[in-house]
Order: sequence, then structure tokens, then C-alpha cells
Amino acid sequence: MATLQKRALILFAHGARDPRWAEPFKRLQEIVQSQSPELTVALAFLELMSPRLPELVPELVASGVGDVTVVPVFLGQGGHVMRDLPLIIAELKAAHPAVSFKIAGAVGEDPQVLSAMATYCLGAID
Amino acid sequence: MATLQKRALILFAHGARDPRWAEPFKRLQEIVQSQSPELTVALAFLELMSPRLPELVPELVASGVGDVTVVPVFLGQGGHVMRDLPLIIAELKAAHPAVSFKIAGAVGEDPQVLSAMATYCLGAID
Repeated sequence: MATLQKRALILFAHGARDPRWAEPFKRLQEIVQSQSPELTVALAFLELMSPRLPELVPELVASGVGDVTVVPVFLGQGGHVMRDLPLIIAELKAAHPAVSFKIAGAVGEDPQVLSAMATYCLGAID
Repeated sequence: MATLQKRALILFAHGARDPRWAEPFKRLQEIVQSQSPELTVALAFLELMSPRLPELVPELVASGVGDVTVVPVFLGQGGHVMRDLPLIIAELKAAHPAVSFKIAGAVGEDPQVLSAMATYCLGAID
């Protein structure tokens, strides 16, 4: 069952109607993938963009992924992160009982991310 | 007219129904305010939370602010940043012609913010 041990890191974002919205998320995916080439780093969306999380995970599992970490690429933790995401993951766990799922905290909760945002905000006024 | 030269930095976020959602934005405001005590650093929302931007700006102007920089604390630049915010600012400019308004790029477009998010995402899988 060694093929089931492949690991995936899913960057989970909200999605939007405007395709330009996804650009920083794609850049984030590229940066993370380049820094960790042994991982499968994928982008998935809650709504309005593809792939949705329930579409992506079966593809990853079919490719041999047995360990999935989902990072909510959200600044605030509201209903989408606290309620919608756990429900989606619960359904995915039921459908893929051999796969390990973990949900990380939202990126906006990270002190280093906040610090980088603060530096950017202060720079904007110069 | 020296009192009109007070400067404000407005951190503009989406808003959400869950009050916990606003916590990182409040922390961001506190960090930025502590790093730049001479500025008025305020938080404003597009919807669902108070104050909205059109509510906040008249208060700032009444307090002597004559120069406003708005930083969209959004990761992606979709309709809210590209369309809604410029419309709100255009109305505020019309209502406050003596006040200077500037809109910065969204925080998610900043390479250092992306880099900090990438580091966080990679750390989530350990």
C-alpha cells in the first residue's frame, strides 16, 4: 500500500466570478510546489471556481495520495472555514476511509502572515 | 488648513456574519497602528460588519483627516476590489472634494505576503 502514502497539500480558497481573483492563489501554489517538489500541491475552491474540493480529492486519491492536508487560504475564519470546510472534509472522510485528512488553521491567523501584511499596509501610505 | 492634513490608513475588508472572522483584521489594525502611531489606522468593511467605508470616512474627515489611503485586505482582486471599492471611493471623493484618496493594491498581491503564506502552508504539513 506504499502508493497510498503519497502526500498532498491542498490550498483551499473561496473562489470568485472574476478569473483575475485566482492569480495570487496560483502564485502561492507555484511557490509552495517549488519549495516542496515531493508533495502534490493543489488548489481547490469552495465555490465559483474549479476544481471544488469534492472534485479534486477523488483525483488525488486515484493518483495514490493517502494523506491530505488542507490549508484554508482565507484571512478570516468565518462560516466558510469553521462550518463549510469541516462538513466537506467529513463527507470526504466517509467516502475515502483509508485516507488521512487534516485541516490547518487559516493563513490569516498566522503571526508571520499578519506581520507581512502589516509591513505592506504601512508601505502603501508612503 | 493644517488640520486637514491628518492622514488615515483604512484597512478595507470584506466582512462576514461570524464575529470571529474579524479577529485577524483587528490584530492587523493593532499591529499597523502600533508601528505608526502618528497615523489614524482604521478598519472598514464592504458588508455584513461595521463600520462600512461610507460610514467611516465622514467621521475621519470630521476629525481632521485630509488624506486617506485604503488598503484592500483581500487576497484576490475580484469584483469587490476591482469594481465595488472604486465605486465607493468615487462617491466619497464627490462628497469630500478637499480630501485626497488613494487605493493601494490588495495585500494578496504583495510578494512578501505570498512568501509568508507559502511558509505557513508548508509548515502546516509537518
